[in-house]
Amino acid sequence: MKSIALKTALSIAEAGLSHAEKSGFKPMAVVVVDDGGRLVAFMRGDGASPGRFELALAKANGCVMLGVGGRALAALNASNPGVVTAAGNAFGGKLFPAPGGVLLRDGQGAIIGAVGVSGDTPDNDEAAAIAGIRAAGIDFQP
Amino acid sequence: MKSIALKTALSIAEAGLSHAEKSGFKPMAVVVVDDGGRLVAFMRGDGASPGRFELALAKANGCVMLGVGGRALAALNASNPGVVTAAGNAFGGKLFPAPGGVLLRDGQGAIIGAVGVSGDTPDNDEAAAIAGIRAAGIDFQP
Amino acid sequence: MKSIALKTALSIAEAGLSHAEKSGFKPMAVVVVDDGGRLVAFMRGDGASPGRFELALAKANGCVMLGVGGRALAALNASNPGVVTAAGNAFGGKLFPAPGGVLLRDGQGAIIGAVGVSGDTPDNDEAAAIAGIRAAGIDFQP
Amino acid sequence: MKSIALKTALSIAEAGLSHAEKSGFKPMAVVVVDDGGRLVAFMRGDGASPGRFELALAKANGCVMLGVGGRALAALNASNPGVVTAAGNAFGGKLFPAPGGVLLRDGQGAIIGAVGVSGDTPDNDEAAAIAGIRAAGIDFQP
Repeated sequence: MKSIALKTALSIAEAGLSHAEKSGFKPMAVVVVDDGGRLVAFMRGDGASPGRFELALAKANGCVMLGVGGRALAALNASNPGVVTAAGNAFGGKLFPAPGGVLLRDGQGAIIGAVGVSGDTPDNDEAAAIAGIRAAGIDFQP
Repeated sequence: MKSIALKTALSIAEAGLSHAEKSGFKPMAVVVVDDGGRLVAFMRGDGASPGRFELALAKANGCVMLGVGGRALAALNASNPGVVTAAGNAFGGKLFPAPGGVLLRDGQGAIIGAVGVSGDTPDNDEAAAIAGIRAAGIDFQP
Repeated sequence: MKSIALKTALSIAEAGLSHAEKSGFKPMAVVVVDDGGRLVAFMRGDGASPGRFELALAKANGCVMLGVGGRALAALNASNPGVVTAAGNAFGGKLFPAPGGVLLRDGQGAIIGAVGVSGDTPDNDEAAAIAGIRAAGIDFQP
Repeated sequence: MKSIALKTALSIAEAGLSHAEKSGFKPMAVVVVDDGGRLVAFMRGDGASPGRFELALAKANGCVMLGVGGRALAALNASNPGVVTAAGNAFGGKLFPAPGGVLLRDGQGAIIGAVGVSGDTPDNDEAAAIAGIRAAGIDFQP
């Protein structure tokens, strides 16, 4: 049983892509996963390269699997890359340590899923993810 | 450059899920892939089990990789299961020989992608896929 | 060190595709592998679906790995499918038990590689493979 | 429906290998993939080691999946190796961050595929790729 309703996931993805377009970002892909790291919704913007799905999913899944946001994973990767690579291998490659992976939390702070965005710079990816999450009114941790 | 615009893919998925809900089908997941079998859009209806993504993707990807619809693949699997199993292994498991995988074609007959649906019986999965595709006004081959 | 010169492999693939076109076969893909099952040359005809590469490679590789032609593998699969599936799994999915995989032999009978063709019926695939091999003047075993 | 015709792909590969031979480069392998990263044509020059196929494919596929040229990927790998390793894992190993992977673009700038070359130094691999692409008169991005 997933913890994010499809309707919520779609609103996050749509608002994220809309923010990216208005901001002049490169074409992007947005993934929303549940609290098990399983896919709920995905949208690949026209012009985004095909591998953006795998990267966006790896961002979101890595966050859920470790309970850590993408920005924190990027910092850990900078200080201790061997450990992050090993974790990624343990997850079958589904971990991408970069901003653009954002944890979703409910009102009590429990992790209910994650968003992963890939297409432009990590900072722009994260900005699109956060814009989408804010539009849905959900707590988050980048 | 993918051959199915995101807007079209989303309309297929939304109309497919809406048809399923109105028909009283079990919760479903819908995948739309491009002509290379790469993911364009995905929606998992509330209550659908997490593995429905992998099955829906395998239905759609198998159709594109072979240029054959899911109903034809199911018939081939009934008459010659070893061959279909071997093809699935050659595609890394991304083939599911059942109705619910439907090829998308442009006005000239060229394959431009596929839809994969999983959640209920194969016949109901296919009915949802076709309802979604018809709503988008695209030629198809089940 | 591969046992088939690139020039020979290209002539097999070109003549095979040319035969297919003249015969009105569906668009096809042709693989030529060496005596280690490693790829030497590949051509995907315009209009052939993307997965035809994986199937053609699996046909050719399976033949070389077992030292058995594709038609014989198809017969073995009919009588003992579990064994052929197990062999395919052992080869990482790179075995496809169907006509269209053809062993190549030198004048002393030693295996020097294989051809794999996928795109139409197994019989037509095999006919294209054999036409290509004959044009190159090489001994073969379907 | 692939975006690179077989005839074009073959001319790229042949001209690339011919350039390598005239330049005294080591034996090489050349891959051409379409805009979904799917194989269209492959040639392994006599004397090139068998794994050159996997490396050339990983170069070309990584470029298409990310929409980035191989030289840019190599620079990213130098500055942030953990991220590139993670991307490669997300793509099942089919990414090789080195010169010799070159994006192909149509007249409007859309990505229509990629070329991957492996066999000698990255610079020589790239020179062969570019020579092949130029002979076919196609826009590119190294």
